[in-house]
Amino acid sequence: MARFEILEQAISELAALPGIGRRSASRIAMHLLKAEEYRARALLASIEELRSQIRFCDICGGLSHESICHICADASRSHEELCVVEEPSDIFAIENTGEFNGDYHVLMGALSPLDGIGPEELTIAALLKRVESGNYAEIFIATNPTLEGDATASYIGELLSGKKMLLTRLMHGIPTGSALEYADNSTLARSIRSRQRLE
Amino acid sequence: MARFEILEQAISELAALPGIGRRSASRIAMHLLKAEEYRARALLASIEELRSQIRFCDICGGLSHESICHICADASRSHEELCVVEEPSDIFAIENTGEFNGDYHVLMGALSPLDGIGPEELTIAALLKRVESGNYAEIFIATNPTLEGDATASYIGELLSGKKMLLTRLMHGIPTGSALEYADNSTLARSIRSRQRLE
Repeated sequence: MARFEILEQAISELAALPGIGRRSASRIAMHLLKAEEYRARALLASIEELRSQIRFCDICGGLSHESICHICADASRSHEELCVVEEPSDIFAIENTGEFNGDYHVLMGALSPLDGIGPEELTIAALLKRVESGNYAEIFIATNPTLEGDATASYIGELLSGKKMLLTRLMHGIPTGSALEYADNSTLARSIRSRQRLE
Repeated sequence: MARFEILEQAISELAALPGIGRRSASRIAMHLLKAEEYRARALLASIEELRSQIRFCDICGGLSHESICHICADASRSHEELCVVEEPSDIFAIENTGEFNGDYHVLMGALSPLDGIGPEELTIAALLKRVESGNYAEIFIATNPTLEGDATASYIGELLSGKKMLLTRLMHGIPTGSALEYADNSTLARSIRSRQRLE
C-alpha cells in the first residue's frame, strides 16, 4: 500500500525545517492531523502573523515591525559604535545587558564554507557600505565564540584593517557565576590569554 | 528590550509540537521568518491540506480520504481477523509486508499512566464494541514492543480473555524498545508469521 501522498508531502516540508529529521517530521505530522482544529489554527496563524507582522530592518537587519527598526530609529543612541552580530536574536541578548548603546549590523549567519555559506551569503557587502558611509569610531564584532563565528570575525577584521576606526571583539572568558574547575579548556585558555590588569 | 510578542507566540506554538524544545522552536521560527515566501507557503499549505484531505476512518481509525478507508471498504479482505495497532501509520507497515489480510483497529496510542493516557484516552471501548458485534476468529494485537505497547496488549488481552476467539500478539523478530513503524519489512513479515498466542 502506498502511503498518503499528502501526508508524505507534509512530512517532507516539516523535515526541511532546521533540526527536524524525517522521524520527528512524521511524528509532528501525525500530531497535527490528530490536533483539535483550534490548536492547528493557532499554530498556522502564529506562523502567518510572524511573517506578516515581523520583518528585517532595512538598515541593520534586526527584527522590526516597520521598515526601520526602533533601535535604528532611536535618535538618542550613539552612531559612533557599530556592533556586528550573526543573528537578529543576538541583538536582544546584547540589549538586555544595557552595556551597548550604538548601532547594530546583522550578518544573517556566519561563514561556513562546508555548508556553502561564504561572504556573499552574509550581509558583509552591506556592512562595508555602512562603514564607508558612516562615521563610526568603533566596529565591535560580537559573533559567536565558535569556529564559524571566529572565522567570520577574522574575515571582517581583515576587510576593515586599513580603516581608521577601532576594531573590537566580544571578550571570551569564563561565564559569571561558574567555577574555574568546570570551565572547558578552550574557554579557559582564551580567558587566560586575554587576562586583564587588576584595577 | 522586550522580545517581539508575535515571535514569542510563534515560538510557544512550535515548542508545543512533539519533540521540539524552546531552543529548536526558536531556530525554526527564525528560519520561517527568513524563508522565501514560496517556501513558507508550501509548508503552511501542506499542513492545511493534510488536515483538510486526510481524516481518520470511522471504522478502524486508520488514515483515509473518505469517512470509510479503502481497507475497511475492501470486500475482498477477511473479516475474521482483527489487527490492533497503536497508530494509523502502523497499518502502512503491516500492509507493506503483505502478511495480513484482515481488519484493523487503531488505538490512537498506548496506555501510559504517567502521561495521563488511560483506557479512556484510547479507542478501547470502540474495540470491544467491534469485537462484540463482529465475527472475529482472531484478535491479533500488534502494539509496539515497548513498555507501553506491552502493557496495552496485556490490558486488552485481559479484557478479551473470556471470549471464544484466538488472541495473538506480534512478538518475534522485532528488537525491544523499537517502533513498529520503522521495522524493516522482512523482520516484520517474519514476526507476523510467527505471531504467538497471548497468555
